[in-house]
Order: sequence, then structure tokens, then C-alpha cells
Amino acid sequence: MAPMYFEDFKAGDRFRSPGMTVTESQIIDFAMKFDHQPFHTNVEAAKDSIFGGLVASGIHTIALTFKLILMAGFLENNLGSPGFDEVRWLKPVRPGDTLTATAEVLETVPSEKRKDRGTVRFRYSSHNQRGEEVFTSVCLQIMKRRG
Amino acid sequence: MAPMYFEDFKAGDRFRSPGMTVTESQIIDFAMKFDHQPFHTNVEAAKDSIFGGLVASGIHTIALTFKLILMAGFLENNLGSPGFDEVRWLKPVRPGDTLTATAEVLETVPSEKRKDRGTVRFRYSSHNQRGEEVFTSVCLQIMKRRG
Repeated sequence: MAPMYFEDFKAGDRFRSPGMTVTESQIIDFAMKFDHQPFHTNVEAAKDSIFGGLVASGIHTIALTFKLILMAGFLENNLGSPGFDEVRWLKPVRPGDTLTATAEVLETVPSEKRKDRGTVRFRYSSHNQRGEEVFTSVCLQIMKRRG
Repeated sequence: MAPMYFEDFKAGDRFRSPGMTVTESQIIDFAMKFDHQPFHTNVEAAKDSIFGGLVASGIHTIALTFKLILMAGFLENNLGSPGFDEVRWLKPVRPGDTLTATAEVLETVPSEKRKDRGTVRFRYSSHNQRGEEVFTSVCLQIMKRRG
């Protein structure tokens, strides 16, 4: 895929990532570093949580989704991001789940101040191997313009 | 600090975390796993980015902020989170920066359906060693009720 520039995106465009399987080790390792709550680090305690078993940290799910989004190959000319909105964890991500991410272009807004860039508003989501949507978010990306 | 329950929070309450220094290794290691864009992984290429040097992945900043928030010790009875809103990266986080996180209670809403819990809406933010706010977000936490 040739690198995409701001002008190449239009509302409704969709990109799909490859899949990636999330392991128990990954879930516990991430949580020990950043989110050491029992339902993310302790298989036994997690049984008594509202999740009924070990689940990935929501922040781990954001990170995995963004990794997949980058693997989809359309963000090579991304200059940065001012933020995310409407981050929602819809279903638990459990050890052994295989996630695939989808990006949908919601809107493109050229910068009035800087002619070399524009903002693309994407909806990023992740699905598991059963096709269930586990995560959604809206993300602003500042993309380079051509030339 | 005794574990805090839903009833213990009221709008306006503030909690402050200890500080934590972010290293170049941490920034590059995180980015190699989850956000391998040149301004997060390549000191040389980052000089030519809009940041003018290596910066932490925004997702790394979310993760570090949440780690600090957990270290502040008021989320022991957190049951989970449905989502984050208004995630904003206001200033770059650079190698050597020391972050401190602050949580402010925005609202508390008891669950009508489940008498054992309620939702607390927090504003989480991080400041660097110069007192500059680098990150803000609004996070919903489902907290256990007493008894």
C-alpha cells in the first residue's frame, strides 16, 4: 500500500487490520506494569470479580487496538494526535481472544492555519474471534498533506 | 489510607499521586510494542517531527497516568470502567520528565439497578516537573458500596 496523505481519506472509508491473539502472559505483564488490579493480574481473584475471570486492562486493549491500527498501514503520514473521545470497553477481552481492528473515517478537516496538514477523525474499533465488538473510540489524527 | 467505597466520594474531592520519572528506554520499549511511530522510537527521526525530539506515545501517557492514579490508593474498590472521555494530550512527555497525576471527583451516581455499586466520574490529569498539565481525561469508575 502506498503511503496515504490527508487528501486520500474521505468519510466512510474503512480499513481493517490483521488479527492478533492476546495471551494470559501479555495480560498479566501489562497489568503488573500499568494496571495492577486483581481482575487483570490474579486468575484466582478474578473469578470473584464482575468479569468472572481474568480480563485485559482496558488500557491494554487501547494499546493493542492502536498497534493493530498501525499494522493496517494507513497512518504512515500521521503527525500526531490531540486526543481520543468516547473510549468504550464493551465486552471483556480474555486470554486467548483474537482481536482485529477496524478504522472508519468519520470526517476530514483541512487545517486553516497550516497548509501542510489536516485532521482526520476516525472511529477505531476492535472485534474478537466471535465478531463481537469489544472496544470503540473516536480518535483525531493530524495527517500530512501531499506535496 | 482505609479502602474507599462509593459513599466516600463527593464532587470536588481531589487525590494526588506520587511522582514517577519517564525514561528514554521506557518510551522506546513501550512504542516498539504498541505504537512504533518514528517520533516514539527513533531519536534521530524524532528531531524532524512536529515534536522536535522523542516523545512518549499518548497511549503510554494514559498507562502511566493510570498507574499513578492506582498508586494514589483510592481505587481499591473499583469494580471496572465502562470508558474514558475527552482524552487530551496537551504537551509532549519527554525522556526525563517526572509525572504526577491528580484525580478530581466530578460526579457520583448510585446505580438504580444494583444496590451494591455506583459510578464515580473522575477527571484524571498529569503534570510534569514544571507544573505543566500534559494530559487530561474523564473516566468513569464503577465503585463498590459499603456493606
